[in-house]
Amino acid sequence: MRDLSADHGLEHLSLNTATVRKQGDFLEILEAAKRHGISCVSPWRDQVQAVGVERAAKALRDGGFRLSGYCRGGMFAADAMHRAAERDDNRRAVDEAAALGAPCLVLVVGGLPQFSRPGSVASHDIAGARKQVEEGIAALLDHANAAGVALAIEPLHPMYAADRACVNTLRQALDICDRLDADGARRLGLAVDVYHVWWDPEVFAQIARAGERIHAFHVCDWLVPTRDMLLDRGMMGDGVIEIGKLRAAVEATGFSGPCEVEILSEAWWSRPIDEVLSTMIERYRTVC
Amino acid sequence: MRDLSADHGLEHLSLNTATVRKQGDFLEILEAAKRHGISCVSPWRDQVQAVGVERAAKALRDGGFRLSGYCRGGMFAADAMHRAAERDDNRRAVDEAAALGAPCLVLVVGGLPQFSRPGSVASHDIAGARKQVEEGIAALLDHANAAGVALAIEPLHPMYAADRACVNTLRQALDICDRLDADGARRLGLAVDVYHVWWDPEVFAQIARAGERIHAFHVCDWLVPTRDMLLDRGMMGDGVIEIGKLRAAVEATGFSGPCEVEILSEAWWSRPIDEVLSTMIERYRTVC
Repeated sequence: MRDLSADHGLEHLSLNTATVRKQGDFLEILEAAKRHGISCVSPWRDQVQAVGVERAAKALRDGGFRLSGYCRGGMFAADAMHRAAERDDNRRAVDEAAALGAPCLVLVVGGLPQFSRPGSVASHDIAGARKQVEEGIAALLDHANAAGVALAIEPLHPMYAADRACVNTLRQALDICDRLDADGARRLGLAVDVYHVWWDPEVFAQIARAGERIHAFHVCDWLVPTRDMLLDRGMMGDGVIEIGKLRAAVEATGFSGPCEVEILSEAWWSRPIDEVLSTMIERYRTVC
Repeated sequence: MRDLSADHGLEHLSLNTATVRKQGDFLEILEAAKRHGISCVSPWRDQVQAVGVERAAKALRDGGFRLSGYCRGGMFAADAMHRAAERDDNRRAVDEAAALGAPCLVLVVGGLPQFSRPGSVASHDIAGARKQVEEGIAALLDHANAAGVALAIEPLHPMYAADRACVNTLRQALDICDRLDADGARRLGLAVDVYHVWWDPEVFAQIARAGERIHAFHVCDWLVPTRDMLLDRGMMGDGVIEIGKLRAAVEATGFSGPCEVEILSEAWWSRPIDEVLSTMIERYRTVC
């Protein structure tokens, strides 16, 4: 396990740009990251699009940034009327990831079709949505392979099963990987976010099972109480997740990518960007 | 599968008294249930204690009520200073269940000790909490067997893992049952609440595995969006859960107990009790 307290150059830290999404546009976030010595980021698609993919790519190059991923593709469940748009949209997400130099596209797979692709006919058939998700990933895999972008399925916490992602455990995500890419040659894998998986009694067994399939590792913390199901995630150390134990397990698989901080939080979005980044760096060194 | 639309006598319906907890005390709730032809209830412990166990038991007898369970024992995780109080408290819960004539005591097992038994030393060790839960159930089982009260472990949704219950899947609950009561002779089993388990990709496989271990079946619905993690549960039909499919699976195991409606909801608590009960009965017949 790497000793992050000694990572003076922040070599193993990545900033997911959603963590400070309200404090500035993508270019301003890169400037702030630079000020704090952060050289690896994981951009969100809407933030990139707001400044334009080419400008974003140039700013990343000019700033000497590495990428740990691109957030996000997915939202596969859709009715027949919205299927073609879903396929196009996901291929574009892969192309953008490639243009930016991201090693992987994180997939938030979507829940029921009416929430995943709004306007779709409403359904309560979660098994059907899961089938569509797997078909959507299968359909995207060739394009991703051709572009040199790995696909990283991110299992989301079960509280998002209806509306954001009906892949809710590492076991379920790995079963999909096994079915679509048995030998790993197509680089279908996972994004492991401690927020989504810490509660799972099988989390350590499934991380070990994942082996080389882990493409990304995300951290934040679970607050008690959690006042909002989406936007009340905690800074590392402010909640109950045993982040270090989970990172040790992930690194024991051979994972050598960065520890990516992704905090969706109205509370942190309301603070100055420099305060958020310096707190994040301190916690990265002392808590993760 | 039973045809609830033809259940004119509400033979297979149970009212969990938490569903209308703000509209009256335990005795007033029984009166309202009677008005609507409901003859089976599942009382909550605090509601019973507020009027006294003996008065509650007499009102249940005088009203000719059956019980489908008693809510709730559990909250097993505690530090050393709070262990004896936890053991005493849970034995009393069994005694009260027996005094009221409840067939089972529903166990909400508790999360980390500082939330499960407030005042306990804080810990982030969820594996340790899970061990304590299993030890607590093992310690309670003799007393429950002697009292003729079955213990029903209720796996709670993973969003409650930290503070309410660190048993979060049917698989995990059944693994505990298998370890502590391999042949089922001690009647250690489950309460299956659709709200907590609907999202689980393994839900149908684990219900089938449960066989005769299912002691209680609870219904409500999952709303999108869910505005509060505890108190925004939905009336059946207002959310996304395929309640009928889950009930069919539960009944396919041989379960013949009632369909117990438990809705924790500030919205429904703010409505007149007769409106809540008549809506509940209509949805019971048409949605469940």
